[in-house]
Formats: sequence, C-alpha cells, structure tokens
Amino acid sequence: MRIGLIGVGTVGGGVVEILESKSDFYKESLGLNIELALVCARSDEELAPFKEKGYPVTTDAMALIQDPSIEVLVELAGGYELPKKWIQAALEQGKHVVTANKALLAKYGHELFPLAKEKGVHILFEAAVGGGIPIIRSLQEAFVGNEVQSLSCIINGTANYILTRMSQEGLSFQEALQEAQEKGYAEADPTFDIEGIDAAHKTALLASLSSRTYVDFEKIYVSGISSLTSADIAFAKDLDCSIKLLGIYNKVEDQIDVRVHPCLVPNDHLLSSVNGVLNAVFLECDNLGPTLQTGAGAGKLPTASAVVADLVALSRYASKLPPIPMDFFQKETKANLLPISETKTRYYFRFTTQDSYGVLANITRVLAESRISIESIIQKGVQDPGKVSIVVITEKTIESRVNAAIEKIDALESVSDKSQVIRFLM
Amino acid sequence: MRIGLIGVGTVGGGVVEILESKSDFYKESLGLNIELALVCARSDEELAPFKEKGYPVTTDAMALIQDPSIEVLVELAGGYELPKKWIQAALEQGKHVVTANKALLAKYGHELFPLAKEKGVHILFEAAVGGGIPIIRSLQEAFVGNEVQSLSCIINGTANYILTRMSQEGLSFQEALQEAQEKGYAEADPTFDIEGIDAAHKTALLASLSSRTYVDFEKIYVSGISSLTSADIAFAKDLDCSIKLLGIYNKVEDQIDVRVHPCLVPNDHLLSSVNGVLNAVFLECDNLGPTLQTGAGAGKLPTASAVVADLVALSRYASKLPPIPMDFFQKETKANLLPISETKTRYYFRFTTQDSYGVLANITRVLAESRISIESIIQKGVQDPGKVSIVVITEKTIESRVNAAIEKIDALESVSDKSQVIRFLM
Repeated sequence: MRIGLIGVGTVGGGVVEILESKSDFYKESLGLNIELALVCARSDEELAPFKEKGYPVTTDAMALIQDPSIEVLVELAGGYELPKKWIQAALEQGKHVVTANKALLAKYGHELFPLAKEKGVHILFEAAVGGGIPIIRSLQEAFVGNEVQSLSCIINGTANYILTRMSQEGLSFQEALQEAQEKGYAEADPTFDIEGIDAAHKTALLASLSSRTYVDFEKIYVSGISSLTSADIAFAKDLDCSIKLLGIYNKVEDQIDVRVHPCLVPNDHLLSSVNGVLNAVFLECDNLGPTLQTGAGAGKLPTASAVVADLVALSRYASKLPPIPMDFFQKETKANLLPISETKTRYYFRFTTQDSYGVLANITRVLAESRISIESIIQKGVQDPGKVSIVVITEKTIESRVNAAIEKIDALESVSDKSQVIRFLM
Repeated sequence: MRIGLIGVGTVGGGVVEILESKSDFYKESLGLNIELALVCARSDEELAPFKEKGYPVTTDAMALIQDPSIEVLVELAGGYELPKKWIQAALEQGKHVVTANKALLAKYGHELFPLAKEKGVHILFEAAVGGGIPIIRSLQEAFVGNEVQSLSCIINGTANYILTRMSQEGLSFQEALQEAQEKGYAEADPTFDIEGIDAAHKTALLASLSSRTYVDFEKIYVSGISSLTSADIAFAKDLDCSIKLLGIYNKVEDQIDVRVHPCLVPNDHLLSSVNGVLNAVFLECDNLGPTLQTGAGAGKLPTASAVVADLVALSRYASKLPPIPMDFFQKETKANLLPISETKTRYYFRFTTQDSYGVLANITRVLAESRISIESIIQKGVQDPGKVSIVVITEKTIESRVNAAIEKIDALESVSDKSQVIRFLM
C-alpha cells in the first residue's frame, strides 16, 4: 500500500519514525507492505531530512493527491480550508484518507464522510480523538453489541493539566496556565484548549459515533476553564470532588445532550483520578455497564501510533486480509519465560514474632546476610498477647534471595507464624 | 452468516438476547445478516426456551459441527476436553470459532491456533479476557504500532471484589469470600478465582498477545489471595497502597516475566482505584506511554457483548466488507440535540457577597422563587476584607431556571462579584 503524507510536523515525523521501526514486523508478521511513497510539506527546509533519508518529496500537495499510484492520503497538516480541499480531492480520486484533524472533521465531516461513501473509500481518524486511546475503534467495533447511553470524557490534556496543577499545588489559573506553557503543554495562544473548543471538536465526533447521527459541533454548548478560581478548587475538595473539563454525551429519550464544560466529579468516580495531560473516556452502555479507557491524549508518538494503526487497518482491508493472525501461538514460537526466582521487585514482609528482646536484630541480620536491603520497617503494637507484627519493606531484590531468607527467618525460634510475603507493583 | 451455538448458560443466553435486540441494526446499518442457525445444549430442558422462540435446536454437538451450512461455531459450554474436541472438529470443517473459554485456550491454544491457521479460519476470543474490556482487539489492532513493554491487570472480578471488601469494610478474607458467594460473585468452589488460576489463564493469553510468543500457562508463577489477612490490608493502607491480585507481564531483555500474585499497588496508580468486580488492564508500550482500560470483567451481557463484537467482525470479514461505515455523518441523519437550557444536573454556585445581614436570606429567596431546591450550603470565612463566599449545592435542576436565578442574584446589591456556576457530573 503506497501512502502519501502531507505534513511533517510533530505527528507527521512520528508516523515516519514508527513506520520505519515497525516495517519489518508489518512485512514479516502481518504480511503488509506499507510504503511511504511521497512526503509533502510547505518548504524544502521542512522536507530536507526526509529527502536525505531517500523519501521522494514534494511541496506540491495536489501533485501528491493526483498521483494515481498513491492509495492513501495521510493528512497531518492541520487547519481547515487547505486540508479540506486536499481531502476532498483525494476522496474524489478514490484514495482513502487517514487524518488527525479533529477540527476539520467536526466542522466539515458531514461533507467529507458522504463523499467518501460515494467513492467507496474510507476516512479513518483514530488519531483525532485521544491519541493513545483507541476510542474510535472501540465505539465502532468493540462496542458494536452495545448502545452508548452516556459518555463523559477528559479529552483535552492542556485543560486537564491546568486543573490538576490548580488542585495539587493550589496554583491560580494564570499560574497553572503559565506553567503549562513553559512545559510545552499549552500553546502561546491557548484559547482552543482553555475555552473548550478543542474538547468540543472531539466531543462532537464522539457524540456522532455514540449516537450514529451527525452532531454539529457549532451547536454544542461549550464553556471553558478560564473562569475557575482557587476558591472553586478548594470548595470542590470540601465536597470530595475534583473539577474536570468534561465532554458529555447523554441519550435523553429521542434527543441527545452534548456539552463541554467544567464539571464537579466525585472523587470516587474513575474520572476524578485521571490527572495531568492524560485523557480518558468513560462510557455507560447497555449490555456492558461502565467502562473507562485512559491514556495519552496527544504527543508525537501516541498520536502517530494511532495514525499507523489506521494505516495497518486500511492495508489489511485493501489486501482483503483477515483479522490479524494469532500464528505465534505455537510451539515454534514458545516464550522464553523468566523464572520467578530471577524476578526483581520490592517486597513487603510481615513477620509475626514474640514480643521479645532481639527479634528484630535476628531478622535484620538474616536479611543482611541474604543481601536484601531494607527500605523501611514498621512495627505495630501487640495484636495477640505476646505477638508483634513487624513489617519490612525491601528495596528491589531478586526473588531467589527472598525465598532463602524467609525460610531462615521462619525457622527462628522467636518467629511464631509463617511469614507473609507480598510483592510491590513498582 | 450462519452460526451454531453450543452452550446456553448465562453467556450463551446473553448472546441470543443481544443478537435478537441488535439484528435490525446489524442488517440495516451494517449490512450484516447474522443468523443463529442451530442451538445446542446437553438437555431438552435447557433447549426448551430456545425451541419455543423458533430456533432449531439439538443435543448433538457433532451434528451442529458437521452441518456444512454453519460457518461459525460459538463455543460457550466451558470445560476442557469436550470443547477442545468440538473446536478441533469445527476448525477441521473450515468453520470459524468464537469462544469465551480462557481455560481451554490457555491450555490448548498452541494446538488450536495452528490448526485454525492451517485451515484458513479464525478463533476469536475477546470474551475470554475481561468481558467488557476490548483488550484483545486493542492489543491486536489498536496498538499494532506499539510494543507492549509491561502489562499489569486486575483480571479476576471475584478476587478483586474480595480484596475491595477487605479493604473498605475491614472484613477478613473468609467474611469477604462468603459475602462474594452470597452475592453470586464467587462460586461454591472458589478455588479457580481465589488461587489465581483463572487470572493465570487470562494473563497467559494477554502475555502471548503482548509478546507474540506462545506462553505456556502451566509455567507461569501463580499465587492466590487466600493467605492475605486484615493485618496485611491495614499495613498496605499505612504504606498508602492497595493490595490487588495482579496478572503481570514484563519484557526483560530477551526473556519475558509473567506471573500472577497479590501485589501492593501505590494509591496514586490508576489500578489502585479499580474496585469491586471491575477488571482493568494497564499497559506500558513504546510510542504510547501508559494506558488503562477498565470495565466489567464478567457477567452475562458484558461477556455476551464481546462474543457478539467478534461475530460482527467475522461477519464483516466473511462478507469482505470494509471497516464499519461512518455513513450517519450526513445532513439526513442530523442529531436532535437537547438544548442546554433543558439539561438537568446538580449545580455548584459560588456567590461572593458582602458580609452583611440578610444576604443569605436574599439568595435563598431568589432560589426558592426560581424553584431551585438546595441540597447544602457552605459558608466560608472572610477571604477579602468584607467579602464572604457562599457555596450552594442544588438538587437536580433544569438549566433554564438556573440562568434566570443567577441573573437575579447577580443583581442583588449585596452580591459583589459575578457568581460562579459549575455543573456536577452526577
């Protein structure tokens, strides 16, 4: 499958990087040949690194689109009018389109999707909404046995970062925005992110997929986060809530309720712990109950990964290939398993000991002899008469040392019960 | 596409229910005709309700498998030896297979998947791991531009329920197990769930998909939760951790580290807030960063939804159909949007008032006249000299009443700043 790429900014560069690093896997394991046939950008300067690597390059987008050997246009330039023209022309030429351009699809999707249908081609846009979250694929394919009854999403990483910092550090909105700008999470003109416009683009697309109707982004109620103050964040805490900028979709009888605004989210709700630049989509569907998907919302490689997943899907479709094969599930490709004795984690040991002089010294001596470093020790008051719980947290230790040490400790006269061993996740 | 179903227990019944309720959608919107051609169970009693609805039924599984008009076997009987025989026979006959049988696939996948490949057919098993979480599809398709570096999952709802109750209510393991049994979350013989065997079946499958190698379930280190005590749960809290039964996969140079055991999870980790019978899969991939998917782990309809999603995928493949169309994205199917003025939520109002007699009375009078019911009021000490913050939480109220009321309150002489209005999620 020959693809033409317009736009070599952050995401475009990431797509080239991933295609290069994964092309052997796609060829050998998936039987797919995804070829970057032509790269287009506004200037020769932008194209220079790609030309150097040997890719054919052009500054003429229409030449790319009119090249009959190119089957897929990957549009990663951003903006409205030019990309719309390119995508329309590509669809007219019978090319599939992969794009991350949520603004364009939210505004002109009702023109572009019908054209794609008419021409028998596809517009895929997993990268347009929550780059690292496969939410488009989930709504279209995984939850095809379900109807979305409500959807709430944290879908703008910049706004979520600002609100997280206001909450965690007590920063004012302006301070948090400035920090986000310094860290590269917010643009010099942050309007689209902080006023909820970007979130509304994405929410309109998710609401369309959820309702299987065309949701006009211009008609959605949108309110941003710039009017939130530290006082609101503090009151929210008193209410055991977090404030999040949410995109919301609800099915309400024969209407749908779609809006984007700051929202008080109870702290026992899964969305409340989605912090920083993370995105998340919370769904309630019939036949399914609540589900949450969370991951990177933006960024070079997460977004590029989603573009590449769309390219693989198109490539399989174009080749009339079946679902991705499970052909590794055989003796010839048997896994090389790390023995449990060689795994390394932090450990929690709980020793139940007699409340006698020298017990702790005995235990720590065995651990030291076993070359197990102690991170901390907690000794709790007597539970059963004469018995004491000693909890030892270790530094990262190889499991084989642990088994030998615990065996020795369990054999100590002053240790009364079998010791408890629990591993840490990290 | 004609399917034959073996097994009409909980999940089998759910599949029939969903196929019935969604068949119009599949026919009309997706162009798919998924026909339940034959239903098989052990006894006429089990089959009676399906016979009554007009489905052809049989108690002879091999007759179903040998029916050349049936293209897909849906195996939902459970167990090892018989289902293995049926699936082998079905694959030999060139039938696709959809199953929720993780035990079977973990044990015999290395025999069944190569046979499927040889015969040019597919075994799909989204329902086998985390029913409501599309993790198989995500690993195979969405994250095809990524390599899984580590995976940690809460993949057994029974164990997670028990640990949640031990943590939330201070129950002992035995008490929590008994409660789970009473609520139908644990079986009379809970061994598979509490000793980590079910989690190991699923973890082996996820580790296979993550590593694209065959992970032998028998070789995985498995340790269950039955030895955990209230003391451990309490110490974990002191350490700002939760204890979860985790399935773990790590790539370690040229080996893979796969294990199932109780694990201390820091409370700021997304997995720590996955409670009750919920399942979750946390991934760290190259090019992607951390992602979490959470949802129902088991249950009739969530599991059945996953079976149906696999049937839709197979049906599209069998019909050589392209990705699920976005043909609703056009003027003719424009959404019927609920106006924001008609939405109903709970509200947070923050009024900044002069610290004068009667302000609160004025505000509550306006709210009462606007027919807005108050749930609670918080009045905080003076921030700026002479200014007081009054926070009012309302009961569910229609937005149109809110706007009118806030306008009136902002016009009150004693209200000094523009009032803040934030909606609640729930």
